[in-house]
Amino acid sequence: MSVPVITFLSDYGLEDDFVGVCHAVIAGICPEARVIDLAHRVPRGDVRAGAVILRGALPYLPVGVHLAVVDPGVGSDRRGVALRLADGRVAVGPDNGLLTPAAELAGGVVEAVSIGASPFALRPVSATFHGRDVFAPVAARLAGGAGLADAGEPVDPAGLAALALPRAEVVDGVLVAHVLYVDRFGNVQLDVEEPRFEVGRVMAVRFGSGRSERARYLTTFADADAGELILYEDSYRRLAVAVNQGDAASRLNIAVDDELRIELE
Amino acid sequence: MSVPVITFLSDYGLEDDFVGVCHAVIAGICPEARVIDLAHRVPRGDVRAGAVILRGALPYLPVGVHLAVVDPGVGSDRRGVALRLADGRVAVGPDNGLLTPAAELAGGVVEAVSIGASPFALRPVSATFHGRDVFAPVAARLAGGAGLADAGEPVDPAGLAALALPRAEVVDGVLVAHVLYVDRFGNVQLDVEEPRFEVGRVMAVRFGSGRSERARYLTTFADADAGELILYEDSYRRLAVAVNQGDAASRLNIAVDDELRIELE
Amino acid sequence: MSVPVITFLSDYGLEDDFVGVCHAVIAGICPEARVIDLAHRVPRGDVRAGAVILRGALPYLPVGVHLAVVDPGVGSDRRGVALRLADGRVAVGPDNGLLTPAAELAGGVVEAVSIGASPFALRPVSATFHGRDVFAPVAARLAGGAGLADAGEPVDPAGLAALALPRAEVVDGVLVAHVLYVDRFGNVQLDVEEPRFEVGRVMAVRFGSGRSERARYLTTFADADAGELILYEDSYRRLAVAVNQGDAASRLNIAVDDELRIELE
Repeated sequence: MSVPVITFLSDYGLEDDFVGVCHAVIAGICPEARVIDLAHRVPRGDVRAGAVILRGALPYLPVGVHLAVVDPGVGSDRRGVALRLADGRVAVGPDNGLLTPAAELAGGVVEAVSIGASPFALRPVSATFHGRDVFAPVAARLAGGAGLADAGEPVDPAGLAALALPRAEVVDGVLVAHVLYVDRFGNVQLDVEEPRFEVGRVMAVRFGSGRSERARYLTTFADADAGELILYEDSYRRLAVAVNQGDAASRLNIAVDDELRIELE
Repeated sequence: MSVPVITFLSDYGLEDDFVGVCHAVIAGICPEARVIDLAHRVPRGDVRAGAVILRGALPYLPVGVHLAVVDPGVGSDRRGVALRLADGRVAVGPDNGLLTPAAELAGGVVEAVSIGASPFALRPVSATFHGRDVFAPVAARLAGGAGLADAGEPVDPAGLAALALPRAEVVDGVLVAHVLYVDRFGNVQLDVEEPRFEVGRVMAVRFGSGRSERARYLTTFADADAGELILYEDSYRRLAVAVNQGDAASRLNIAVDDELRIELE
Repeated sequence: MSVPVITFLSDYGLEDDFVGVCHAVIAGICPEARVIDLAHRVPRGDVRAGAVILRGALPYLPVGVHLAVVDPGVGSDRRGVALRLADGRVAVGPDNGLLTPAAELAGGVVEAVSIGASPFALRPVSATFHGRDVFAPVAARLAGGAGLADAGEPVDPAGLAALALPRAEVVDGVLVAHVLYVDRFGNVQLDVEEPRFEVGRVMAVRFGSGRSERARYLTTFADADAGELILYEDSYRRLAVAVNQGDAASRLNIAVDDELRIELE
């Protein structure tokens, strides 16, 4: 049998033992699982950022159990869920939209259970650390072969929390895109998948403020001049805006959800 | 046979290759072991913090070899030890008190050896990196099934270094507690295990300075008002003091070992 | 069969999911491999620092596939390579000198292939993330038993990028050494392997500026006075300069490649 894989994304950071203890809980329940730390420095409580990272990484993750915990509502009445996705993956985490974009990319949710009172949870369940007491043990049991139906109470997939993400569209020949994510270098990822522009093409980019700049569509930073504004396809195959050797988000004063209107010249 | 587990806590940080090289040494000696990084950002040289983290995490760790290195005395005459604990766990690290609270929680030390001249150590042993040259290889050999008696010279468990930790007590109906640990959010963990107060109960908390505040005992932050001082059972089942959306340690000006006197109202 | 080992060094940092996604790619291709994170906080783009760390760690790494990515030239015409070393190790990374010191320590390169168009790469290959799309999958396939000749096009090992590292020598009885690496504590590692000086010996150290200081050769910091300048053999068996409880590099105003002239008194 193949090695079960659990991927693990959280906003726990690495200063404390939160991540390590979740690993320990998993190892105690499903010692044969291989746990892959996807990212643990998602900005604290930033469900949207976690969701974007998880969806972006998904095509590179082996089919397995995808544990994700960015959970500002821990201890409130938000649900915890385990989801079987159409492509055979399983996702485990809070029902706050964190899992939704990845689930959509995987073809949707075919079965969902609420795991707040899961028989797989550690008892007693703490009020503040469901990663350790609920999500990690449920993920470990599912990785070990337990059935989703045994992990909790069935819920209607249609009732799962949505996550509003912008969608680019073409309006009168203008590509109206939005900022999906800004990475720590200030590179600005847009909601345009697999752009297929001609390399070297010059475009006019109009920002929400009305200000406009021209930018070349290039393959990589190395092809641009220092300080030049460029458009390019980033490593997650999304259209992105960058300043070679600079910080595009700061220079252009743009942030998540801002609109950009892009026209070929 | 089950997969041997090694948990690994240190103050090595993640900037250098110290942690990675210890992993490599373990993998070379006991490739079948699963190594779980518990925490590597224990404040440098802070034996007490490392000991509190290790003891707190212990109930969640699979029975295995627990490697811990917070070792400000490396190169001096402090001993390195490997300990067999009453519940079947093995602990490996410096004999400076780091392992003591976890060992007590595990029912005590039933066998101890000094590993400064262990036949399992890598030669030559460096003067400054016993994690790599002594502790990791000893842990790996023990995880692989070697006997503790073969790891070093027997020593009397009664002579192991103690670690003075405060102990809460009830005096004339007042709970006299002490600060055990302050986490990076300023939440203040006290030396009271499994508090069983009624949720919503109001208490008077008197600080060392003589100043007193009232606080509700709640289940979780989400139940408190913003800025409200609360008492709660933290995720390690200890009584803790927090300010919802704030930093209790800073606001109350309290630090490790401070005394708090808590009375029901 | 033994567990294949992949060690992984990069300058990707831990803020994003770069490292995690590379792990995921490896797990999808070679689930049985054990991946050891050697270091991921090599200063961004600092090929020399990555090379020094990799070479220093090499003797502690199990024979396996050594994946290293510090790749400021990604997307340019620099080659990616996989190398079979004389001691049976395999190294995978950019051909920019990063792998060279480790390869020399391992006895040299006996077979090299260019992997820019490797059949093992993920398609499409992004312009900016060859760690995920080229280096990790090639490393995983090689760890899984694929032949080096199948990973890419053969190239002449003599044409691989060199990395200029200084070499200490003795001139008229004076040890002329150079700064190889400064760690984050300001300890200054020199290009002198396995110094065999007498402990307690006093030496005169002349810096490039002409300034000279006396220093004792000691075994460890603990033997020095606070603030004392010492020479010692560091944990990678190289001669190093340190200030006990201080920062030698700052105090002496010395940096990588500076020359130090050391005489016994």
